[in-house]
Amino acid sequence: MAATTQRQRAIKRLQMDGIEQALFANPLSVRWLTGIDVPGGSAENPSLLWYDEGEFTLLVENGFAAQAASFGAQKGCHVRDYLGYTIQQPIDKPGKLARLLAEVAEGGLDETDVIGIETQSLSLNLWWAVRRLLPGGYDLTPIDGWLEPLRAVKTPEEIAIIREGFRLTDIGHVAGRAAVQAGAREIDVWTAVQSAVEQAAGKRMQLGNDCIVGHRPTNNIGGPPADITIRPDDSFILDLSVIHKGYWTDSCATYYAGTPTAQQVTLHTFVEEALAYAISLIKPGTVAKEIDEKVRGFMAKGGYKVYPHHTGHGIGLTGHEAARIVPYNDEVLEAGMVIMLEPGIYFPGVTSVRLEDGLLVTETGAEILSGHDKRLP
Amino acid sequence: MAATTQRQRAIKRLQMDGIEQALFANPLSVRWLTGIDVPGGSAENPSLLWYDEGEFTLLVENGFAAQAASFGAQKGCHVRDYLGYTIQQPIDKPGKLARLLAEVAEGGLDETDVIGIETQSLSLNLWWAVRRLLPGGYDLTPIDGWLEPLRAVKTPEEIAIIREGFRLTDIGHVAGRAAVQAGAREIDVWTAVQSAVEQAAGKRMQLGNDCIVGHRPTNNIGGPPADITIRPDDSFILDLSVIHKGYWTDSCATYYAGTPTAQQVTLHTFVEEALAYAISLIKPGTVAKEIDEKVRGFMAKGGYKVYPHHTGHGIGLTGHEAARIVPYNDEVLEAGMVIMLEPGIYFPGVTSVRLEDGLLVTETGAEILSGHDKRLP
Repeated sequence: MAATTQRQRAIKRLQMDGIEQALFANPLSVRWLTGIDVPGGSAENPSLLWYDEGEFTLLVENGFAAQAASFGAQKGCHVRDYLGYTIQQPIDKPGKLARLLAEVAEGGLDETDVIGIETQSLSLNLWWAVRRLLPGGYDLTPIDGWLEPLRAVKTPEEIAIIREGFRLTDIGHVAGRAAVQAGAREIDVWTAVQSAVEQAAGKRMQLGNDCIVGHRPTNNIGGPPADITIRPDDSFILDLSVIHKGYWTDSCATYYAGTPTAQQVTLHTFVEEALAYAISLIKPGTVAKEIDEKVRGFMAKGGYKVYPHHTGHGIGLTGHEAARIVPYNDEVLEAGMVIMLEPGIYFPGVTSVRLEDGLLVTETGAEILSGHDKRLP
Repeated sequence: MAATTQRQRAIKRLQMDGIEQALFANPLSVRWLTGIDVPGGSAENPSLLWYDEGEFTLLVENGFAAQAASFGAQKGCHVRDYLGYTIQQPIDKPGKLARLLAEVAEGGLDETDVIGIETQSLSLNLWWAVRRLLPGGYDLTPIDGWLEPLRAVKTPEEIAIIREGFRLTDIGHVAGRAAVQAGAREIDVWTAVQSAVEQAAGKRMQLGNDCIVGHRPTNNIGGPPADITIRPDDSFILDLSVIHKGYWTDSCATYYAGTPTAQQVTLHTFVEEALAYAISLIKPGTVAKEIDEKVRGFMAKGGYKVYPHHTGHGIGLTGHEAARIVPYNDEVLEAGMVIMLEPGIYFPGVTSVRLEDGLLVTETGAEILSGHDKRLP
């Protein structure tokens, strides 16, 4: 993925604020601006992206230099690497990255007066590597969070990746629906789901989120799978995210160990209606908090206690991002956003139901990206 | 786990250098000094540990405050939390952590003159929260890597956790040995291993490392499982780590899809001898690089190209840590260290064999902690 659009959006934003040099240290920023899935920002494999008046230089460990080469082959893009694993000397990735950064930054800082920094991700030792090169009179502008609103509207390449991710997610749900049986445990359902997704992908995948029986006595909203056995009349929440090429999906279905009880049928049918109603509200120009308010109102009118979590959220390089569908959010939906919606009803100790779809906001409304079967058995 | 020993070792080291206040930002340091498995240091769930003349304060997101309470109940230990997930306002964990840090640090900084900082893990925004409180004439001492040598000798509580981890690792190998069959793929072996470990643990586990057929044409030493099919005469390297309560195990076996070829039998037998020889060298007082040199010498004398990787390494809160068994390392083994040894022979495009055991250095020699079956079929 070339990520040309992403860099154009970022350059425009930086120029608007008169920023000539910038240092992107947040791994999500590095991923988004380069378009390649290089491990970044972790203590284990630190990566950085240096910006200098329209040009970008990716700093990676040498073990990932081959993977990064396609980025460096593009106009205005460069790759530099530092020594990672070796048996000939102590491994010192942060120290070696700091020295490389100083080398890369040096040329660009002679006449800098405004430098942008992602201060929440840049470690102190890396900052020192830059600071000692800076002339006396510079301005430092924190640019934390600047890219998040730019990331909300997805490019066609990003949407294609997210679609692939949803196909893997659907495969996980088929396995999950089959695995929810009385006597099996939450963890057994999880291993069935995980194995199905990884076997379909032909590789290890990072997966989330919730895999729990509805009869959990306190938090029956979500959580990782545990050694808890499914009973014959249990509902089961499988809220599944697949991280594919760096991009998250999300999805939720509620499955049943046996024939659903009358109460479960009533709840499930109502949540289906709530989700359909929520989906009907998704179109460009809608304000996030208004969707939130309306869907909560729908639950309350049905006589149910309103869920304590978000009504929905954007997805992309994270599992929860702009636009959040929550009470305070004035953000306006735009075509190209990918939004999750997930109403639920929870009776701790008894049962719980949540259903979730992923929507691509289109020029005229929304397209459902998730394809999992959320119906009653 | 109380981690009292860990804090005593750290306090001694800090006092020796005249450090009165310190800020531990490396998640491994936070984990080791608190003894609890609170997610730390990631952008997702940042945690910090503030040290002030013998007392420790753990700063965590409110969602983990209950988990952290057992730490706060100990003498000289405190827990403070900041707001994480909310639907009422934007989630701003780094900003909220910075404000909490300023509040916690303020009292202790009045008369500070030497403050220790893990500069490779502390982000610039968190540093700013402290710096603006500091009096003019302070000294800042980077304390990156200080705890790593202190972590090398494990406490009895740590060894107990690592033993539990090895029992889960052994379960993974039983499943892996059975799953290596002609026609199955690397990823199928992996899902069998992963499912067995997670089902035994009753929860999701973080797992590593290598799961590959010996006939890979270039790198047949290691790598994650891919969509590569096992052939009838293939060897298969399963190098498995289980991260249990924050502590890594490690282990490697070589399995065979059918009856091993004469060459495979020869290689396997030789690597068994090399591993037994390496194990015989492990005892307190031995210098790491001398073990490395001797085992490499053993391979060369056998007429084999010497493996390009380490001969071994310590394990603990990371998968590769002190004491590294590599050519440059003068560190001396001590009782309580946990050391992996892993000689291997690699013929790219043909076959590869590696065997690995985990050793607890005892007063008189070594105890093998790994219990997986590394024998020929």
